[in-house]
Amino acid sequence: MSTRALRGAGCGTIWPMSKTTTGKTNAGNSFEDFTVGRVIEHATPRTITEGDRALYRALYPTRFALPSSAEFAHSVGLEQHPVEELIGFHIAFGKTVPDVSLNAVANLGYAECRFHQPVVPGDTLRTKSEVIGLKQNSNGKTGVVYVRSTATNQRGEVAIDWCRWVMVNKRDEDAPAPEPFVPDLKPALAATDLKIPAGPDFTAYDEVAAGEKHRFGDYEVGEKIDHVDGVTLTDPEHMLATRLWQNTAKVHFNTQARPDGNRLIYGGHVISMARALSFNGPANAQLIAAINAGAHVAPAYADRTIYARSEVLDKAETDAPGVGALRLRLVATRGRDESMTLRGEDGKYADGVLLDLDYWVLIPI
Amino acid sequence: MSTRALRGAGCGTIWPMSKTTTGKTNAGNSFEDFTVGRVIEHATPRTITEGDRALYRALYPTRFALPSSAEFAHSVGLEQHPVEELIGFHIAFGKTVPDVSLNAVANLGYAECRFHQPVVPGDTLRTKSEVIGLKQNSNGKTGVVYVRSTATNQRGEVAIDWCRWVMVNKRDEDAPAPEPFVPDLKPALAATDLKIPAGPDFTAYDEVAAGEKHRFGDYEVGEKIDHVDGVTLTDPEHMLATRLWQNTAKVHFNTQARPDGNRLIYGGHVISMARALSFNGPANAQLIAAINAGAHVAPAYADRTIYARSEVLDKAETDAPGVGALRLRLVATRGRDESMTLRGEDGKYADGVLLDLDYWVLIPI
Amino acid sequence: MSTRALRGAGCGTIWPMSKTTTGKTNAGNSFEDFTVGRVIEHATPRTITEGDRALYRALYPTRFALPSSAEFAHSVGLEQHPVEELIGFHIAFGKTVPDVSLNAVANLGYAECRFHQPVVPGDTLRTKSEVIGLKQNSNGKTGVVYVRSTATNQRGEVAIDWCRWVMVNKRDEDAPAPEPFVPDLKPALAATDLKIPAGPDFTAYDEVAAGEKHRFGDYEVGEKIDHVDGVTLTDPEHMLATRLWQNTAKVHFNTQARPDGNRLIYGGHVISMARALSFNGPANAQLIAAINAGAHVAPAYADRTIYARSEVLDKAETDAPGVGALRLRLVATRGRDESMTLRGEDGKYADGVLLDLDYWVLIPI
Repeated sequence: MSTRALRGAGCGTIWPMSKTTTGKTNAGNSFEDFTVGRVIEHATPRTITEGDRALYRALYPTRFALPSSAEFAHSVGLEQHPVEELIGFHIAFGKTVPDVSLNAVANLGYAECRFHQPVVPGDTLRTKSEVIGLKQNSNGKTGVVYVRSTATNQRGEVAIDWCRWVMVNKRDEDAPAPEPFVPDLKPALAATDLKIPAGPDFTAYDEVAAGEKHRFGDYEVGEKIDHVDGVTLTDPEHMLATRLWQNTAKVHFNTQARPDGNRLIYGGHVISMARALSFNGPANAQLIAAINAGAHVAPAYADRTIYARSEVLDKAETDAPGVGALRLRLVATRGRDESMTLRGEDGKYADGVLLDLDYWVLIPI
Repeated sequence: MSTRALRGAGCGTIWPMSKTTTGKTNAGNSFEDFTVGRVIEHATPRTITEGDRALYRALYPTRFALPSSAEFAHSVGLEQHPVEELIGFHIAFGKTVPDVSLNAVANLGYAECRFHQPVVPGDTLRTKSEVIGLKQNSNGKTGVVYVRSTATNQRGEVAIDWCRWVMVNKRDEDAPAPEPFVPDLKPALAATDLKIPAGPDFTAYDEVAAGEKHRFGDYEVGEKIDHVDGVTLTDPEHMLATRLWQNTAKVHFNTQARPDGNRLIYGGHVISMARALSFNGPANAQLIAAINAGAHVAPAYADRTIYARSEVLDKAETDAPGVGALRLRLVATRGRDESMTLRGEDGKYADGVLLDLDYWVLIPI
Repeated sequence: MSTRALRGAGCGTIWPMSKTTTGKTNAGNSFEDFTVGRVIEHATPRTITEGDRALYRALYPTRFALPSSAEFAHSVGLEQHPVEELIGFHIAFGKTVPDVSLNAVANLGYAECRFHQPVVPGDTLRTKSEVIGLKQNSNGKTGVVYVRSTATNQRGEVAIDWCRWVMVNKRDEDAPAPEPFVPDLKPALAATDLKIPAGPDFTAYDEVAAGEKHRFGDYEVGEKIDHVDGVTLTDPEHMLATRLWQNTAKVHFNTQARPDGNRLIYGGHVISMARALSFNGPANAQLIAAINAGAHVAPAYADRTIYARSEVLDKAETDAPGVGALRLRLVATRGRDESMTLRGEDGKYADGVLLDLDYWVLIPI
């Protein structure tokens, strides 16, 4: 699991916190506000609609047949028409920002993110987080907070859960350090850990409609695919996206919130852009089943052109009919690197790498 | 009631009107086209959808639980899921622009705006305006037109009504002045004037979901709240918003329509941005019941960073179960002013003040 | 029919194609991949929703009453509420890009585009194309491909069909030329060729709601209307639109894809903008029935201000009650030209002309 800072993913306080005047604004939690076992119920519940699907299409060049077409979804056994998994993830994640990472210095990692069932229009998501680990840093000024967050729908069923850990400022440097506790998180979920939603049956999969003939059997572990296309980022677009997920971190919206006057692009915007670009490649990777780990290696800003590539890390069959799982590394870069170098000889990420995401997708066998 | 010009709120002719070639384009009404008692039915009826809610979320950092979550709306007694009140207001207002303010020099004020019932997806709004006052200016070139506008839904029920007055050019300076008539408008609606929609019952209000523990009893008249967060404006975003409301005033879209080459931002964009920013404060102010008055004190342009603050002006209980009303002053500024100065010693608005809005909201007791 | 290049309309390879690494990305078709009679089923089916309608409203200043109001649509005999015809067209067209024009040097023309029935939210569109003509160019490097594309809905009914022809690169200059075959396409559809959808009955047409009193009988062949209003283009807006239609041509999104570093604006964005601006004119032209021909005369870029004008080319009654048809020329220009000059004395398009579109609309008699 990467310990690189996940800059740009709901991390809100690179600049100093301002004083509020009457204590009626949210000051966020500081390191000493977290205790292992504490459960935080996050505001605000949010209903997903067809409007979210349309905006996602406008913001990202996605063409995966399943979220694009209700007919296609029905043809693979899904009664209702799911939205892209990342819509649910960004919304569920956004809710945790005001309580977990408003005073974060850095987002350090994700682990064990599972998509338990597809999110469909009409679903209302709520998120709660349990503190599962704490470790004060040796400088005495900050500490690492580990949380497991769970998004549930209006029936109380789990839709998505995930762990993340963030570095958070202390309010009072003299406050005593808590007993350190670092949870045991999996470097990657095994294929047997995946929650395959009820429904998907890829036995009558229409690869013509999906636009891609390569299936599970056509991919080999170690194979790399350059997704070729690039998108040049703009500020209005990432702000529209980030607001849509009700993510409030100021650095994404306010040019006065950072010394360089640039808006920092929400890391999830880069994830969604790279995932959409990956259609020009494994276009049959219709559903995201899990995120094993993710590092926002470098910050992204407007006017940079993002490219993406994938590497097949693992593959496994599942119990669902005709459904295989591929574990992919999705890498986003600033500018295209046809050599597809991830790290230099020194083991550090190559210049230009923005995102290194390790995830499981479902694909027809 | 402010008599400051409401620049930027559907005011369309800072530049000279062009000649149309065959009389088949809308030239708007000039001062002499208005007579007291004249009723204008505005085009175009407009159906509200979930797409409007999604776009509103993308454009403004709103997180109020009631418009965010259908489940939350049901939990406070609303069968259907209302959209933000300002969606209805901007749409209803936009319809009046081609007939009322296309030739306006300035929007001078609002009064007596009441939200009679929540607007929900599927509702179709129409707007008509009655001329309720006229007063030619002493220069003989312009006059003030007062209208009461009423938006009705597909059942013919009133959804929103409001008064506004605008300064409109005369087509012919030699045309005789009409008998002056200035209507008697209330400086502010009393709490007893509010139309509390059927439904809201805040007795089982879920403040955890809403994200805020402060209720009616926690606010004192005179209290000021700095909403802390800022948003830097962009041109594409305000154009998306203004088109969504079918507001056609050219100064918002056309850099050739103004001598400085800047697009003037629709005043309603600033209202919605400030209202959304106010979530970091009275987040339980779930419904807007009325707008008493509003002044767009200075024009807004792209690249400026907007901040907001609120002042409690009045408070009152209502007949609805658990529902209180707060009268708030919502102030938007260009740049953050932690001193929260509204006016200087000379009585003029302080530099940087963009919006001074006086409105009633509903909040749990 | 114009043989001017339709630059900007789904034309993807002004820059050199990059090599893909494992053959799992779409390289598009080259000239020698097309044979007369070949049918290509395009990915990806796409369900239309109310979110598309909302985004279209946000992107274009459209105020036509029929797509704006479900009530208005019902009042003219339509059970369901159609979206703008161009939403269907752009989506259907976008699907052809990866297979037909990814390697196109230029889009040369459209013909015989008919809207067979209104597209409504919930419809899922698929597109297939049949190659109906081929002609290698004398340089041996490129050839012209003629296709007839057909978009069908989830019931297998034709929604839209059209022809277009594009100039496509050869992969291998030494490949033999196919037998040339140029299909016989109509310069314009006759009124009797139009597919008037079941439903529209304009006998009780509400011109107050529509915002326009001029009807079929008020327009004369040869009449020109300047639509007066202008919109200054931005990059984020055209990208949002073009992605929404799942159009993947790189030149619209990637500043590295063109030597000048400008994003080329999708030609369909200009069509939709001009059509929306034409509301300030024939606002009763509620439905588009056909596109006879179209030329994207010059490329469009951000920061240019678009104006539009119309010329009445023909008119005819139809069998539908109260429904007449106008054949209009819709011209978009960069900057406003009140002289409404289309071509200079040399027969070439006047400087500033961006679009020359010949289409049929339905209007109340």
